[in-house]
Amino acid sequence: MGKAELQDRHVLSVAQYEREQIDELFQIAEQCLPIARSERVSDVLRGRVLANLFFEPSTRTRLSFETAFRRLGGAVESTVGIQFSSMAKGETLEDTVRVISGYVDAIVLRHPERGSVARAATVSLCPVVNGGDGPGEHPTQALLDAFTIREEMGQVDGVHVAMVGDLKYGRTVHSLARMLARYRDVQLTFVSPPSLQMPRSVLDILDARGAKWRIVESLTDAAREVDVLYVTRLQAERFSDPVEAARLAGSYTVDRKILEDAGVADRIVVMHPLPRYGDLSADVDDLPGAAYFRQAHYGVPVRMALFCKIFGVTP
Amino acid sequence: MGKAELQDRHVLSVAQYEREQIDELFQIAEQCLPIARSERVSDVLRGRVLANLFFEPSTRTRLSFETAFRRLGGAVESTVGIQFSSMAKGETLEDTVRVISGYVDAIVLRHPERGSVARAATVSLCPVVNGGDGPGEHPTQALLDAFTIREEMGQVDGVHVAMVGDLKYGRTVHSLARMLARYRDVQLTFVSPPSLQMPRSVLDILDARGAKWRIVESLTDAAREVDVLYVTRLQAERFSDPVEAARLAGSYTVDRKILEDAGVADRIVVMHPLPRYGDLSADVDDLPGAAYFRQAHYGVPVRMALFCKIFGVTP
Amino acid sequence: MGKAELQDRHVLSVAQYEREQIDELFQIAEQCLPIARSERVSDVLRGRVLANLFFEPSTRTRLSFETAFRRLGGAVESTVGIQFSSMAKGETLEDTVRVISGYVDAIVLRHPERGSVARAATVSLCPVVNGGDGPGEHPTQALLDAFTIREEMGQVDGVHVAMVGDLKYGRTVHSLARMLARYRDVQLTFVSPPSLQMPRSVLDILDARGAKWRIVESLTDAAREVDVLYVTRLQAERFSDPVEAARLAGSYTVDRKILEDAGVADRIVVMHPLPRYGDLSADVDDLPGAAYFRQAHYGVPVRMALFCKIFGVTP
Repeated sequence: MGKAELQDRHVLSVAQYEREQIDELFQIAEQCLPIARSERVSDVLRGRVLANLFFEPSTRTRLSFETAFRRLGGAVESTVGIQFSSMAKGETLEDTVRVISGYVDAIVLRHPERGSVARAATVSLCPVVNGGDGPGEHPTQALLDAFTIREEMGQVDGVHVAMVGDLKYGRTVHSLARMLARYRDVQLTFVSPPSLQMPRSVLDILDARGAKWRIVESLTDAAREVDVLYVTRLQAERFSDPVEAARLAGSYTVDRKILEDAGVADRIVVMHPLPRYGDLSADVDDLPGAAYFRQAHYGVPVRMALFCKIFGVTP
Repeated sequence: MGKAELQDRHVLSVAQYEREQIDELFQIAEQCLPIARSERVSDVLRGRVLANLFFEPSTRTRLSFETAFRRLGGAVESTVGIQFSSMAKGETLEDTVRVISGYVDAIVLRHPERGSVARAATVSLCPVVNGGDGPGEHPTQALLDAFTIREEMGQVDGVHVAMVGDLKYGRTVHSLARMLARYRDVQLTFVSPPSLQMPRSVLDILDARGAKWRIVESLTDAAREVDVLYVTRLQAERFSDPVEAARLAGSYTVDRKILEDAGVADRIVVMHPLPRYGDLSADVDDLPGAAYFRQAHYGVPVRMALFCKIFGVTP
Repeated sequence: MGKAELQDRHVLSVAQYEREQIDELFQIAEQCLPIARSERVSDVLRGRVLANLFFEPSTRTRLSFETAFRRLGGAVESTVGIQFSSMAKGETLEDTVRVISGYVDAIVLRHPERGSVARAATVSLCPVVNGGDGPGEHPTQALLDAFTIREEMGQVDGVHVAMVGDLKYGRTVHSLARMLARYRDVQLTFVSPPSLQMPRSVLDILDARGAKWRIVESLTDAAREVDVLYVTRLQAERFSDPVEAARLAGSYTVDRKILEDAGVADRIVVMHPLPRYGDLSADVDDLPGAAYFRQAHYGVPVRMALFCKIFGVTP
């Protein structure tokens, strides 16, 4: 395959997807749903081999990619914590990828270093999918988040989403905000301590796309007005004062009482990239809009759709 | 699938199997034997995905489950030592299982904590198989042990089995004794140091089922009278006096000489859950009744039969 | 399968391959090339299961074997660092292999101890492939090295190969030298510090086969005369004097300038078993004869050919 053609098949950043491509991808993901649920068997990737190279562990993401590839009839080989193998001792990431990309048909690469996956793609002989490059990108998470909103709300256009928690360092909320800005009439409400607000660089992108956003401090106020509450973890270690940290973490914990007080317990869609710790209470699990496990499950059909696009096959 | 229907498909404890179900399972296991031996290819689980979640390593058990699922045409993804992944850091087992059970068609769970697998099953969206929950249960081991007796002796009814070694802490002998009590005219002889005898709770179950049992101290006496000698490891660390420990361990070591002295070397069936250390001598390996490696191998068709039952397919 | 028939199917040492068998193997490997490149799908190992038992990590070798088996339609289960599992704590390698070889159709075994793989083969119930036994053998590496020369040069007969670096401890150069001695009119030039020369035992085998060899110290002189430069790592820790070590390592580093000075940059074939560190400069990568990544990739079709031979199937 030519270098240019290969370049189009890497999945590196949400920036590479415009609205039209996202719509097409999500249509394919919907066709993949019955296969993801074992209601239909697909074999379109028969004979294809995927290598999962996880330089840092992420069981959830790894198994989601593995399942997606296998549900389409392909084979998967995984290696986790590759940095401890003799292979990687002192070997450059480029050499590792040059070798493995000559064995297999696609690579999913997760690596702690920002930009490492894009760098790997420049030397790879096969398509590379970014499975998270540290503080950089995690494009398949943003895609599955947007797909979840579409499935839960019926459509993404016109949706009002509140993002709650650590918006400064949270990779997922940055990517999702940028992805949502591609839709029409989307409103974003950011709920975070002042020291953990959404970075200016992301806000600038939203402005450039004409997306409406605002910053509020009260979780209850936000819950009252939005369709979707996207909760993320508030990391105590970001604060120098432990007493202040505990107080803040408490005021950004989403539980059933807050949603009932805001009068939205029966209708609000609650999302979370998981794992959750203290940030999202288990007493929310029974609400009809508790979507975070469905959200995790949607990762499989969305990743199936990406593989269908990469290999030019119909599920 | 409905909650009640799913409940019937979990494999959690030997207690859930009555004689009739065991007979049916073993008939399926016998049909699986030619597939386990690569004499026939099966594809009945094509498109199905199994997740092996091993929170503690057990290479033998894991590979047995993997082989069983693959021999039926399914795909497997495994994760070992999952507690070291970022996913499980502080995440509850319930959340982990809620996520993974939405990806795949079945989960085999091995976990160091008693009761953890049953707990996981209550939140799982797919069938869960107990691959060992610490000091709790390991039902597939008991099933393969009983299947081995059936294959070696022709039938299980009327068989006389001696269990040797640490009968107090040995999970496998507890489960096997309870399983054998479901058969007719089975006799059990327990050979152990007084401090490591079969617990009263297990003996009560045997009595309730009307199974004959007795306790003896001499290994040679036991060997002379039984059809099957089931050897387990005597753990030296159970004893406070190291000299006493060494003497005892020696008197419960099964070797060729003991079997020859008892006059049963040419006919007795010797079993062991493996791995063996000093408890079973390599000079027994050549005897016709040395069944412990065949026993390990029978784990594959028995686990295949369980998967056939779970998915309602015929091998 | 009978013991004798099984014996013929193990892959333990380069010594077991005569010229005729190598030729046949490489013909099969060439038939496997389109399958290795995903231009054709094969299913000849459908229903077969391979166990990769890697007692020490080697991601590159493991994934190469995995890909080879999967490209032929088989299923693979891998376990790495098996020595840390409860199974292997104190259990003999023989017992481990007796159990696993009754589950699967073939085993690839990598183990740090010389002779361990041959020992495992004596008790295995299925074919065993040596994936490297410490300082002992790594026969599939030697086979893929020879296959690379054949593909790069058109044939192996009459080829002149220089081996550079640590020829005393380098397992790959020993095996490759012995393999090349099976061809007609092959010339070998050994380039190494005096303290790291090719061992007498290997030179004796070359003499017995009538292969021409010589020892030189200058890398530039060697490069000028040979068709293939096989570079290996010079391990600094082999030298007591760090200043001497640095000087020596520098004089055995292959870079573009050396090849240009020797006037061979446009035609010489450069090979390396990888990973490389300082021994082979990245500025060589763009030369037409930089064959080391192709060499790694040829490992897949060569291992596919071995599996085809083992199972008696045509790709």
